[in-house]
Amino acid sequence: MTDAHDPAPSAAVLPAGAVPDDFHVFDTTLRDGAQREGINLTVADKLTIARHLDDFGVGFIEGGWPGANPRDTEFFQRAREEITFRHAQLVAFGATRKAGVRVENDPQVAALLASQAPVVTLVAKSHLGHVELALRTTPEENLAMIRDTVAYLVAQGRRVFLDCEHFFDGYALDPAYAKQVVRTASEAGADVVVLCDTNGGMLPAQVTAVVRTVLADTGARLGIHAQDDTGCAVANTLAAVDAGATHVQCTANGYGERVGNSNLFPVVAALELKYGRRVLPEGKLAETTRISHAIAEVVNLTPSTHQPYVGVSAFAHKAGLHASAIKVDPDLYQHIDPALVGNSMRMLVSDMAGRASIELKGKELGIDLGGDRELVGRVVDRVKERESAGYTYEAADASFELLLRDELRRAGAGGTPLRYFTVESWRAIVEDRPDGTHANEATVKLWAKGERIVATAEGNGPVNALDRALRVGLERIYPELAAMELVDYKVRILEGALGTGSITRVLVSTSDGRGEWSTVGVAENVIAASWQALDDAYAYGLLRAGVEPQE
Amino acid sequence: MTDAHDPAPSAAVLPAGAVPDDFHVFDTTLRDGAQREGINLTVADKLTIARHLDDFGVGFIEGGWPGANPRDTEFFQRAREEITFRHAQLVAFGATRKAGVRVENDPQVAALLASQAPVVTLVAKSHLGHVELALRTTPEENLAMIRDTVAYLVAQGRRVFLDCEHFFDGYALDPAYAKQVVRTASEAGADVVVLCDTNGGMLPAQVTAVVRTVLADTGARLGIHAQDDTGCAVANTLAAVDAGATHVQCTANGYGERVGNSNLFPVVAALELKYGRRVLPEGKLAETTRISHAIAEVVNLTPSTHQPYVGVSAFAHKAGLHASAIKVDPDLYQHIDPALVGNSMRMLVSDMAGRASIELKGKELGIDLGGDRELVGRVVDRVKERESAGYTYEAADASFELLLRDELRRAGAGGTPLRYFTVESWRAIVEDRPDGTHANEATVKLWAKGERIVATAEGNGPVNALDRALRVGLERIYPELAAMELVDYKVRILEGALGTGSITRVLVSTSDGRGEWSTVGVAENVIAASWQALDDAYAYGLLRAGVEPQE
Repeated sequence: MTDAHDPAPSAAVLPAGAVPDDFHVFDTTLRDGAQREGINLTVADKLTIARHLDDFGVGFIEGGWPGANPRDTEFFQRAREEITFRHAQLVAFGATRKAGVRVENDPQVAALLASQAPVVTLVAKSHLGHVELALRTTPEENLAMIRDTVAYLVAQGRRVFLDCEHFFDGYALDPAYAKQVVRTASEAGADVVVLCDTNGGMLPAQVTAVVRTVLADTGARLGIHAQDDTGCAVANTLAAVDAGATHVQCTANGYGERVGNSNLFPVVAALELKYGRRVLPEGKLAETTRISHAIAEVVNLTPSTHQPYVGVSAFAHKAGLHASAIKVDPDLYQHIDPALVGNSMRMLVSDMAGRASIELKGKELGIDLGGDRELVGRVVDRVKERESAGYTYEAADASFELLLRDELRRAGAGGTPLRYFTVESWRAIVEDRPDGTHANEATVKLWAKGERIVATAEGNGPVNALDRALRVGLERIYPELAAMELVDYKVRILEGALGTGSITRVLVSTSDGRGEWSTVGVAENVIAASWQALDDAYAYGLLRAGVEPQE
Repeated sequence: MTDAHDPAPSAAVLPAGAVPDDFHVFDTTLRDGAQREGINLTVADKLTIARHLDDFGVGFIEGGWPGANPRDTEFFQRAREEITFRHAQLVAFGATRKAGVRVENDPQVAALLASQAPVVTLVAKSHLGHVELALRTTPEENLAMIRDTVAYLVAQGRRVFLDCEHFFDGYALDPAYAKQVVRTASEAGADVVVLCDTNGGMLPAQVTAVVRTVLADTGARLGIHAQDDTGCAVANTLAAVDAGATHVQCTANGYGERVGNSNLFPVVAALELKYGRRVLPEGKLAETTRISHAIAEVVNLTPSTHQPYVGVSAFAHKAGLHASAIKVDPDLYQHIDPALVGNSMRMLVSDMAGRASIELKGKELGIDLGGDRELVGRVVDRVKERESAGYTYEAADASFELLLRDELRRAGAGGTPLRYFTVESWRAIVEDRPDGTHANEATVKLWAKGERIVATAEGNGPVNALDRALRVGLERIYPELAAMELVDYKVRILEGALGTGSITRVLVSTSDGRGEWSTVGVAENVIAASWQALDDAYAYGLLRAGVEPQE
């Protein structure tokens, strides 16, 4: 920390491993990111996300608006007690004092101090329309509100950043006033003045031009806060850096209001890998994919499969044309080595793929198919046929490997298919009782190692009941199943192409504590599709555990 | 069309309403977009998408690679027979002739002519590494391949665009050779030379610099093809336009390999609304949202809720701060009027929202709540309680309206809740028989208008069976139900926050032929959650049909 202000009492000593202060990676997932439609964070969620962000190595974590709601107030208290930050400093967000109120009498400003966060981001108006219509005050009083609040918090030992809300729109309306806001904040002691594209309508060339002018005319240290309404938030953030901004406000996975905010991960990756600027602690960039997915889990959104750098598809190749050439030199077909951000290249199995993709996929699984053209041809045919029925092997590697190993066995000496058990029939019943409770019961009839098994179980739902009945029936014969657990379950309704009714696809992820695998089932109803995915899940688990299939 | 070449026989007359030729909006959803993980298009899908794109008003639709796979060959034949294009011209994609082969003897080039597409996009190498390692030929032969193939197709009456694959990486390696490729194609008669960021690693400032130099040094008409691996594809496309490119290659919703391609919709919206450049036929921009969602349906992907301009969240406001200010002037809080792209502003109901949001939402539904603080408070409480249990009213407007109208009725003179029927119990059975078929049967026990009803039905799954049993039981009493139909069904598994087991959320969309509504159900299993969503769906349908609730 290079600023001259006394740090707040609770942050008298900088955390060990603190990142350099000449360029700020400032995360606002916990405040602005939480405004995304569908996100609803508990205090426990916020603490978990703060730990992930600190682990990733951002310099600043904006935790919320203390005083504005009880959850945020509680967050600052618990974060102080429960988290030892290794890299980040905690930031409280709040507004400048109310018009016509003395700053020391404003309860909202008092709540910022009470949070004991060492850094405060103040939001202020820099757009005359908002000053008049939303704040209902005069341009002069707005400047006084900024001056008073910044100076007061600085005098109390806080480091202050000022967010100029609606800056770019305000600048278009009245550049002199917008710049006056920047100067006022900077002169009152704000360390960084952050230009916010609150409505998200800007494009990169405009951002570069405005930031360059404001920097030249005010000399203030500038930051950028971009929203993604034009699809350019990452580019706008970098465009501001190109013009001299040294503080970028982002959110994990781009979560945020409307379309979202500037996405932390591609911004950091571009700064480190394209600009050659170190903004994270050593070794942390390689954790990008893990951190991105972990935060998605906490906010309970499926990680975006197509997110730059970190999506499971980000380095996935499907085109037949590319698949053949990638054998020659993978670096010709990817802009960075995926390992740099903790991701990896994948070859996709799909009916657009030809033999080259299937062979490469086999190699990925440790199976050399190079010599057997007929076998590869049969695998390609089975994949095409199943995918046209709604299966997807792109997302179900384990089901694909079962298919492949089944074909290998059929082609082998004995010529037997890959089977651990065969299913005679099953039944699931869900009953809603007059008292509002539910009963879920399933019965399965199986054959394994020459024995007929009938097992019944209850569960918290029909799929859970089927899962339990299957295990009850098989665990005596295959004790390896005891270590396996369903960890994810996804359902997708696929529309029939020509109004012939829909089919259901289920993807199941299973873990044995050492790794996870995904399987797929497709049927006209969700229970039958789930059953298929479970059947594959346990067959693959047994294969993985090294159990010999039955003859 | 301003070029000097004879058009191909099948396109001797320009389609009516053709868009101007000085700036090309070129769509490659059907070729490059189809390489996205999870997309698998039938010929019927491709024809449907081509109709949507033509309707939207793009100038060029790249339909696929005739000769490379039977589906694409069939597409060109059927498109010729079945579609009368109003705005677009159909483009066939293919490679330059093979090394060491005469162009007139190359079957792949012959397939391009056989497609009878009036325009051909040829892909060529402009990166020396790819020339040597992937093509396995010399730099000189690569130039000859380009020269021969362009000239041959032009002589056959085709308009030719040349895609320079890996152009930006090739330019970084050897700018002189990369520019030589552009010159060669242009001199041989290619109308547009398209600079492709095939690996997607570029940033906007770099794109502007390279395009500007290549334009100055070659004088060729330039296009841009950007991939989204840095999260900057839209910005990179606009950066090329800033530097003088007049041809943009995009895909609907940004579908494409790995992270995806430059997204057609924000590119077109930026060109029309931010650059003030007319690139679509009059009135078509307002169809952006509809076309985007329609294409998502055809490729069977859920429309991205957070896509710029067209996502359902793109103009959705949740923050309490904004909700109060939006009452004053909505234009201060959105970068464009959402109606310009066929979208609309929404106020979200969520537990972050306070009274202002609930009141605004009520107003949206035509219910004035302004006068009743106690009622609004009760609604806020019920929403908070239900959302903490896993319900989401953001995506289930009809369930929210039922909740709101129920509270209104309870607060009214009679004080009775909003009910059309009450459920005593239900049961669903799924049975897998030894022959592999399934039986799905459901029984419901209800009370409606003082009558006890017991109904049983079969279906293609347990939810369908429950749906049918409910209708069988109620249609005699409420004949309005006959017009209603389930049109979408989504399942989401929500993890319990602290390992307490998962719950299931179901969202159902129902249509009565005049409009659609969405309802939500949450329970420990998928059947019980589906039942709740169905219950709400029919109650709302009856409310919407003007049926008086029972006492």
